[in-house]
Amino acid sequence: MPLRLSTRDPGFEAGFATLLAAKREVQEDVNAAVATVLADVRAHGDTAVIGYTRRWDRQDLTPETLRITAAEIDAAVARCDAGTLAALHEAAARIEAFHRRQQPEALSFTDAQGVRLGARWTPVGAVGIYVPGGTAAYPSSVLMNAMPARVAGVPRIAMVVPTPDGVLNPLVLAAARAAGVTEIYRIGGAQAVAALAYGTDTIAPVDKIVGPGNAYVAAAKRQVFGTVGIDMIAGPSEILVVADGANDPAWIAADLLSQAEHDESSQAILLTDDAAFADAVAAAVEAHLATLPRARIAAASWQAHGAIVVLRDLAEAPALVDRLAPEHLELAVADPDALAARVRNAGAIFLGRHTPEAIGDYVAGPNHVLPTARSARFSSGLNVLDFMKRTTLVGCDACSLAAIGPAAVTLARAEGLEAHALSVAIRLGRAAE
Amino acid sequence: MPLRLSTRDPGFEAGFATLLAAKREVQEDVNAAVATVLADVRAHGDTAVIGYTRRWDRQDLTPETLRITAAEIDAAVARCDAGTLAALHEAAARIEAFHRRQQPEALSFTDAQGVRLGARWTPVGAVGIYVPGGTAAYPSSVLMNAMPARVAGVPRIAMVVPTPDGVLNPLVLAAARAAGVTEIYRIGGAQAVAALAYGTDTIAPVDKIVGPGNAYVAAAKRQVFGTVGIDMIAGPSEILVVADGANDPAWIAADLLSQAEHDESSQAILLTDDAAFADAVAAAVEAHLATLPRARIAAASWQAHGAIVVLRDLAEAPALVDRLAPEHLELAVADPDALAARVRNAGAIFLGRHTPEAIGDYVAGPNHVLPTARSARFSSGLNVLDFMKRTTLVGCDACSLAAIGPAAVTLARAEGLEAHALSVAIRLGRAAE
Repeated sequence: MPLRLSTRDPGFEAGFATLLAAKREVQEDVNAAVATVLADVRAHGDTAVIGYTRRWDRQDLTPETLRITAAEIDAAVARCDAGTLAALHEAAARIEAFHRRQQPEALSFTDAQGVRLGARWTPVGAVGIYVPGGTAAYPSSVLMNAMPARVAGVPRIAMVVPTPDGVLNPLVLAAARAAGVTEIYRIGGAQAVAALAYGTDTIAPVDKIVGPGNAYVAAAKRQVFGTVGIDMIAGPSEILVVADGANDPAWIAADLLSQAEHDESSQAILLTDDAAFADAVAAAVEAHLATLPRARIAAASWQAHGAIVVLRDLAEAPALVDRLAPEHLELAVADPDALAARVRNAGAIFLGRHTPEAIGDYVAGPNHVLPTARSARFSSGLNVLDFMKRTTLVGCDACSLAAIGPAAVTLARAEGLEAHALSVAIRLGRAAE
Repeated sequence: MPLRLSTRDPGFEAGFATLLAAKREVQEDVNAAVATVLADVRAHGDTAVIGYTRRWDRQDLTPETLRITAAEIDAAVARCDAGTLAALHEAAARIEAFHRRQQPEALSFTDAQGVRLGARWTPVGAVGIYVPGGTAAYPSSVLMNAMPARVAGVPRIAMVVPTPDGVLNPLVLAAARAAGVTEIYRIGGAQAVAALAYGTDTIAPVDKIVGPGNAYVAAAKRQVFGTVGIDMIAGPSEILVVADGANDPAWIAADLLSQAEHDESSQAILLTDDAAFADAVAAAVEAHLATLPRARIAAASWQAHGAIVVLRDLAEAPALVDRLAPEHLELAVADPDALAARVRNAGAIFLGRHTPEAIGDYVAGPNHVLPTARSARFSSGLNVLDFMKRTTLVGCDACSLAAIGPAAVTLARAEGLEAHALSVAIRLGRAAE
């Protein structure tokens, strides 16, 4: 049974604190193994990448076959189901349209002292997208990671995807093409992260690496951070549903399971002001589990990490939501906008009874790469700004420097930084002052 | 002598690649010591913080005296020089005015399918600012770290600053007050980072920690990342000056030294198209060093990490600038805007002969916390968005879900995620389909 709490219960605060503090993920320490792979690829380039790929993916590659050719992508796309391709392109178009609205504006003005000030945004020069192989090869994830880079104007988007035993989901290649990926390599693991970060004879280095992966990939990303930028390290999926008793329990149960089915470490939580509805949802979860193909995973997640919290009143919800800071927040209530306005911490909010979280995983338009493990307290989902950087601009002439320079000289001297002071004062003709 | 390169030289590419690859910072491995401190503070709270402060700062504190009182801040401000305070407030006002222009706008629209979409920004709930003690206690750094948080609307800004042997720069407290810091604790080191991340009986936990520190502080920030957000880990300062022969060599030499004086690991590089001017700048550097109080540090930086690159033509500059991706880029040329437009990677650009970089350290307005070690290729200086997070919003009604839901069902099934498909299909009345 999932955890059951009630805010009326005297033990509620202790139980909720335990829920908040629970670690769902077992961290494998693979740092030493990953450091060896990174050093090897850095030193031996393609040869090392090919060696690891032979060992772990059972693929014999050469520098010439590392890259998936346009003809191979054509052939893969031709194998895809037409209806699925149409859905993929519908999703790509909607994701692109939403992300286009995130493009930042440059700033440029001259202030009252005559100082020209500004900030401008430029795209990152080259981005690497990691895509897991095997069962977790999700075309939607390719769209969500690559499209913001394309909208940002990144000229080079290099994707890596392992093909263990030669297996590759053709929809992943179709998604890469739809998202504007410019090159694809059939490699994975820490060796692929190293190739992207350091470059090899065949693979030019990138400036930033994004995308989900296993413990080795996550550790490799952490270790190359600094040499390149990385995105956040994503944890297991989470959904928090706030629902009143007027919902269909089968709908809400499906929503909880949509995240529980990702991984045994995923977490689904229901907050409701109606204890009888809570019981009905719990029963509906069991009913759905009887038919779902991923029932084993979903049930394990629900049993170990699921929770139902019964509230005195929905007005108690925002404070609890903010403490949980969920990746996904579904507000299946009569006035979702009013409730949303009172929430501060959530990666994405799904408003109303007809907005299941899964719509955001595929076609709504906003990104599905969102902060997990309570990090919505301080971070945001993947977006166009993650693939751009801002440069600030300052321009003084003799007159405006004369206006603001003396304060800089005073502060530099107060900090004991006389060369700082000198570089301003010498232009004010006060160097010898 | 600093490194001297010329693009006419056949060995140029190799020399420039060596300059790019050079590591200037010795990384101390203090991870194990820091992990012990973090675990101790997490388990024992104030008692552990007070114990480490006694040992390392030689200060006997109690939970009651951890926090610096308003009366103590008043007294410190009263001791500050009036002219310096005026300069500090001028700087604070200019920094605040620039950062106010970074406030993001919310997004809200309904698309052609009737889907309500949006994104809104909310401030981080509580921020911790680390301020080094001793000689590196810079009031300008307090302004630059705290002001963006205040402009973002962060309700709680907690500062920590160690006071070894009771020494504290009163201007640091004055800067904290000017920047809207809401509470100040006289602690530092890994124990202060732990107190901010985990909280103690006296210090409530924060959501994000920013600010510079020594190797222990940097390691502590890395280790608490995830529990809280952190800013980038700043490396040694850098300046890249692109100057033609029409500049006063003494001005340019002062600019190079303004960053070289920070730290022996700092780096100052000159790119010029005029070899005679390069010689004149080198001579002017030596002349300034004869009088500067921090000459030993500046000379060590200039000798070990400085470089002069003579170009055939200033048109060669942008490509080299982009590879160096400097923290600070000064363009002391006849048409700095044209050159700036051709540069992609730089933390901040200073335009023209009358804009020494140091003006940006204090009073120009943009932030002086900028990406170092070539990370301007993929990251930006500290800004208001670093203290906010974005939540995306999606709202469907039955009609708009019917419009976009089928594609989501198709993609979920293609990914083998039937509970995802179910949560949409059940609302479309197609669950049994």
